[in-house]
Amino acid sequence: MAGNSFGQIFRITTFGESHGEAIGVIIDGCPSQLKVDLDYIQGELDKRKPGQSKITTQRKESDTVKILSGVFEGKTTGTPIAMIIPNEDQRSKDYTHNVDVFRPSHADYTYQTKYGIRDHRGGGRSSARETAARVAAGALAKLLLKTQGIEIVAHVSSVGKINAPEVEVKNADQFIEEREKNIVRCADQAVAAEMIEYIDGIRKQGDTVGGKVSCHIINCPVGLGEPVFDKLHADLGKAMLSINAVHGFEYGSGFAGSEMRGSEHNDIFSKNQSGDIETLTNFSGGIQGGISNGMPIEFKVAFKPVATIMHNQATIDSEGNAAEISGKGRHDPCVVPRAVPIVEAMAALVLVDHWLRNRNTQL
Amino acid sequence: MAGNSFGQIFRITTFGESHGEAIGVIIDGCPSQLKVDLDYIQGELDKRKPGQSKITTQRKESDTVKILSGVFEGKTTGTPIAMIIPNEDQRSKDYTHNVDVFRPSHADYTYQTKYGIRDHRGGGRSSARETAARVAAGALAKLLLKTQGIEIVAHVSSVGKINAPEVEVKNADQFIEEREKNIVRCADQAVAAEMIEYIDGIRKQGDTVGGKVSCHIINCPVGLGEPVFDKLHADLGKAMLSINAVHGFEYGSGFAGSEMRGSEHNDIFSKNQSGDIETLTNFSGGIQGGISNGMPIEFKVAFKPVATIMHNQATIDSEGNAAEISGKGRHDPCVVPRAVPIVEAMAALVLVDHWLRNRNTQL
Amino acid sequence: MAGNSFGQIFRITTFGESHGEAIGVIIDGCPSQLKVDLDYIQGELDKRKPGQSKITTQRKESDTVKILSGVFEGKTTGTPIAMIIPNEDQRSKDYTHNVDVFRPSHADYTYQTKYGIRDHRGGGRSSARETAARVAAGALAKLLLKTQGIEIVAHVSSVGKINAPEVEVKNADQFIEEREKNIVRCADQAVAAEMIEYIDGIRKQGDTVGGKVSCHIINCPVGLGEPVFDKLHADLGKAMLSINAVHGFEYGSGFAGSEMRGSEHNDIFSKNQSGDIETLTNFSGGIQGGISNGMPIEFKVAFKPVATIMHNQATIDSEGNAAEISGKGRHDPCVVPRAVPIVEAMAALVLVDHWLRNRNTQL
Amino acid sequence: MAGNSFGQIFRITTFGESHGEAIGVIIDGCPSQLKVDLDYIQGELDKRKPGQSKITTQRKESDTVKILSGVFEGKTTGTPIAMIIPNEDQRSKDYTHNVDVFRPSHADYTYQTKYGIRDHRGGGRSSARETAARVAAGALAKLLLKTQGIEIVAHVSSVGKINAPEVEVKNADQFIEEREKNIVRCADQAVAAEMIEYIDGIRKQGDTVGGKVSCHIINCPVGLGEPVFDKLHADLGKAMLSINAVHGFEYGSGFAGSEMRGSEHNDIFSKNQSGDIETLTNFSGGIQGGISNGMPIEFKVAFKPVATIMHNQATIDSEGNAAEISGKGRHDPCVVPRAVPIVEAMAALVLVDHWLRNRNTQL
Repeated sequence: MAGNSFGQIFRITTFGESHGEAIGVIIDGCPSQLKVDLDYIQGELDKRKPGQSKITTQRKESDTVKILSGVFEGKTTGTPIAMIIPNEDQRSKDYTHNVDVFRPSHADYTYQTKYGIRDHRGGGRSSARETAARVAAGALAKLLLKTQGIEIVAHVSSVGKINAPEVEVKNADQFIEEREKNIVRCADQAVAAEMIEYIDGIRKQGDTVGGKVSCHIINCPVGLGEPVFDKLHADLGKAMLSINAVHGFEYGSGFAGSEMRGSEHNDIFSKNQSGDIETLTNFSGGIQGGISNGMPIEFKVAFKPVATIMHNQATIDSEGNAAEISGKGRHDPCVVPRAVPIVEAMAALVLVDHWLRNRNTQL
Repeated sequence: MAGNSFGQIFRITTFGESHGEAIGVIIDGCPSQLKVDLDYIQGELDKRKPGQSKITTQRKESDTVKILSGVFEGKTTGTPIAMIIPNEDQRSKDYTHNVDVFRPSHADYTYQTKYGIRDHRGGGRSSARETAARVAAGALAKLLLKTQGIEIVAHVSSVGKINAPEVEVKNADQFIEEREKNIVRCADQAVAAEMIEYIDGIRKQGDTVGGKVSCHIINCPVGLGEPVFDKLHADLGKAMLSINAVHGFEYGSGFAGSEMRGSEHNDIFSKNQSGDIETLTNFSGGIQGGISNGMPIEFKVAFKPVATIMHNQATIDSEGNAAEISGKGRHDPCVVPRAVPIVEAMAALVLVDHWLRNRNTQL
Repeated sequence: MAGNSFGQIFRITTFGESHGEAIGVIIDGCPSQLKVDLDYIQGELDKRKPGQSKITTQRKESDTVKILSGVFEGKTTGTPIAMIIPNEDQRSKDYTHNVDVFRPSHADYTYQTKYGIRDHRGGGRSSARETAARVAAGALAKLLLKTQGIEIVAHVSSVGKINAPEVEVKNADQFIEEREKNIVRCADQAVAAEMIEYIDGIRKQGDTVGGKVSCHIINCPVGLGEPVFDKLHADLGKAMLSINAVHGFEYGSGFAGSEMRGSEHNDIFSKNQSGDIETLTNFSGGIQGGISNGMPIEFKVAFKPVATIMHNQATIDSEGNAAEISGKGRHDPCVVPRAVPIVEAMAALVLVDHWLRNRNTQL
Repeated sequence: MAGNSFGQIFRITTFGESHGEAIGVIIDGCPSQLKVDLDYIQGELDKRKPGQSKITTQRKESDTVKILSGVFEGKTTGTPIAMIIPNEDQRSKDYTHNVDVFRPSHADYTYQTKYGIRDHRGGGRSSARETAARVAAGALAKLLLKTQGIEIVAHVSSVGKINAPEVEVKNADQFIEEREKNIVRCADQAVAAEMIEYIDGIRKQGDTVGGKVSCHIINCPVGLGEPVFDKLHADLGKAMLSINAVHGFEYGSGFAGSEMRGSEHNDIFSKNQSGDIETLTNFSGGIQGGISNGMPIEFKVAFKPVATIMHNQATIDSEGNAAEISGKGRHDPCVVPRAVPIVEAMAALVLVDHWLRNRNTQL
């Protein structure tokens, strides 16, 4: 009700503020007997953690996850799985200058007005640090999906106006290997180099820039998604839009599809050589009527530029008087390289929940 | 769980198939003592009903709504409000040719595979006819929001590649009056004429085309939206993506924002002459940190072209054999004119739910 | 949220007032491909309907159920199943004397105070008539459970101080046959005769009396029930306590168990001749740790006497002034004979929901 | 869905096994600006902790609670409140003899069968240790209710066949003071002495005994409870039945009410000298039509005897073979003295949730 839970059967609840004791997550509804690979979970967190390269924030946090419950002798037991990530680098003093002024395009003003109180340190609950808990839970979801052969991979498809070419993902591991060859997490090495140079320039100017993450889900069986409100793409959309800084979501033909004609947009069914049903095109993005159709699920997520810049900006204080805010702290010039594991994690949480929900479809 | 409910406190559950007895909705959680204006509700349905102009489907249904419960002497009583809309124009024979073939880019194949059974008549549950129930419920939500001064208006902002200029909504009633002057429901009369001519041409070719609907919410108080998963724009996004044919959602700066720099994207706070806090720009689309900030809430919804075209198309039958489907039945050449009230209804359902949820934020 | 829904996966939402247009229920989450036996559903409603014998209210309603959606060619399709029961015998004038006075031990006062408005006719939403919708939904749940061999039977085990002996149910159909031989629905014919005579005497005095219903669930597999809050008996308890007039619930040893010692109460495990695990006693009532253990599930439900009596009673009016209420209308001298199908229906709704939930327990 | 959450608006999720790292709870939906008295919360835990007297288990755990999030400068912020209680006394070796045998009337067999795996140490998730998390959350709920004047008090009203006289609670603090004068937590000192002697005798015999806890809620406003399924007493009943070892729940007249006549059971409304509406009797237990009526809410909870006894008992092992289990470990001879704070906590969680839900009843 207060919005800190996600999912219906595989249901997570996250907690924690940026500069409190710890952040964490409880997963309720994970089936029993799933093998828990803690190294894999930590590896996913490492892709999100700050300080990993010159184009991310220089804050340092190891973001080490610890499992408190729900796992026994390496396997899930069907009881709630609690994971916590202690907060380490709590330089709260970096943030004392923000107590009484509202940072532009941050959540200071809306939190203060909504709740009448806020933990201002580092954005408190509104900090993107919360997404670390999602990545931990999403990693477990991925482990479950992998037992079914379902793979979820994302990469940075644009930074500012620099766009990577469309990709087709045949092999998830190879795609990830390619993507991880560069620090911006774009699967095209040439474009990646261009993006990195661009971000580095932006960083030096004390500015920030937006970008897009594209996600591909392969080997998804037909039948996931619940009409009419919980269409698979509706839940994916909500999941993505719940990530800090996301301003747009599209799947399949997306916004471009609104300019097309039906005669060019319709995906024609066909039986392929293996006897499987597929469509000749995939403008549907792998989802028809809100239900997966067995084709690759494809969507894009648009991130606005990070609001914290190293420039002085006009604003107001908590009494509504004019004030100025100076750029301090350590922040990301572009959020998308660290957003890749978050997008994957949220997609995994949607998929695993719908996979479980679909177990109850037929008698 | 099976996806036919929406909302947490103001919660609706819809039911019904395109060619069954009736469709309808139960609203549970509407506060007591709201005056129910049945004419207003019917008026909203009339904007969605088929057969209203030459650029919509020529099917005829009066879509007359009847309230079965929850209203006493013209006011809500706090008990569930059941509304039904009987199905009238059930020319099921129009659809018998679809029993055994899967229509391209429709939900026939996914429903059949997911459930192992489907009511094929007119798309059954996957028909956009289901959205009439949403419009009825959304009209009640709007009546409640109006008691708080909150207004929600949408219009067609693009058809194919024809785009209306950006609008600023000052007065909801005037905006609606302007929009209703033309059958395509675009607030710009010149662009509307162009759109209508274009759609009419598409219709004559037996083809269809996509488009976009833009929505504006004005007078929304600060504080609606629940971090972290139920951000206001995340719930709006899910609501919109759950509408048939929607392939994309963006709010505020949207996809274009991913190309911008922080220094140009940040919305600077300022106190206006009335002493109210506002922002000088509105790239945030009225929402910061997932919570409304008092500025107009603005978002866009992309609709793909309708899948039913009057051309013959290749497909497969239920055994997976190659088949052909011929274009029959009565369908819309472009869905966006009838989608306007649906977008508004879904937005209203999100807003009313968050308005109620926000009553519990502070002690 | 407003309390008109029940269940998580197999989820029902009821609507309707005693003297409105209709009452009804939507079932969302019933798996597809279940055969729907409408005669069976109507038969269950007939056991609850008024006017069925001299010891029930003489109001007459046929309580004919109609399915509006979700069923195609005799089978469920996985979409929401809407059932309505039109209201027929709406002698609202019988109730006009209740507009401004609060009937003792009824819900008039609490509804009026909570909502600030109420449909006073026949108790409106607080009428036990609402339970007809539960019986319809519960009948469908029973049909599903029967496909798994699970049977639910209840009977009247006490009226006032007249108690039937404890029973063991071996065969559900035989038990029901025996129970239906008398109008009080007690499986022991001699005790039933005594109960009927007693109720008839109470009725002639214009008074009412309470009683108990005992319920037995046989062939339930091991594993239903979700620790820690949704223990099977906790959900059964809530289900029963949500029935009008219920004041108590106990399972297994129940209240008597609070007087026992562990050494006499423990149910010793044993492997029987068929190789199945069973317990030598069943003080656990078929549930251990909130999870069914394969033994018969047994519980008892206590109903208070009906509040409407044919005596004049002191009360207050809506302004809080002293008033008198005279006994009018047509009511039941004892509610338990008609409560038997309601108890079974609610038990079935709990069981079917947990059966579905349990499909997601293991990977 | 997996049953580890409770409540709708004030929603808790507990986690943790008896002998894992820690147990804990997340509270989502607590309004902001509530003062958090950590000493009070710890004090409630101290009433539940093991080792507090000669008639409780001699296990020693300090059960020290730590708040990880959601509280800033001593007040709630409206974000999730995570509380953990590290496990200290983890003598797992005490439990190694239970790995392969199923303890009679414990949850070993049902957990093993349901999940296919279980953390056997100390009962794992099925251990009553989980209720410590509930007590911590319930203490916060009580703090919120106290701001509204609502008080919840319980005491031990029976042990075996020893019953305390019915009590009327005028002043919550005085009642608690009286109750805490003895280690069995019965408000009647003479009966308490008898109970203590009895339990001590049972303990020396290596046996256990059941008992009852009675709960009183005073100063509850009219209007809490949501018809039809979420009646206040239905939610209280579920809450109580979800506590380990509970086998029965009754409110108001309870089971005895089933033997009464309407003419004696009806609670007559009256305006008292202060001008408040009250009822002359309270067989309704403060709840009518599922909604609080302003009278004291009164209910009783029946606990079975603890299953762990110091006797050898026959049982079966995990292969279904006959086995014997010897009584080891440190356990309670009677659970009710430590159950008093748990009953209060669960009642507080129900009340606070319904108090919040009721904020949305009227427009």
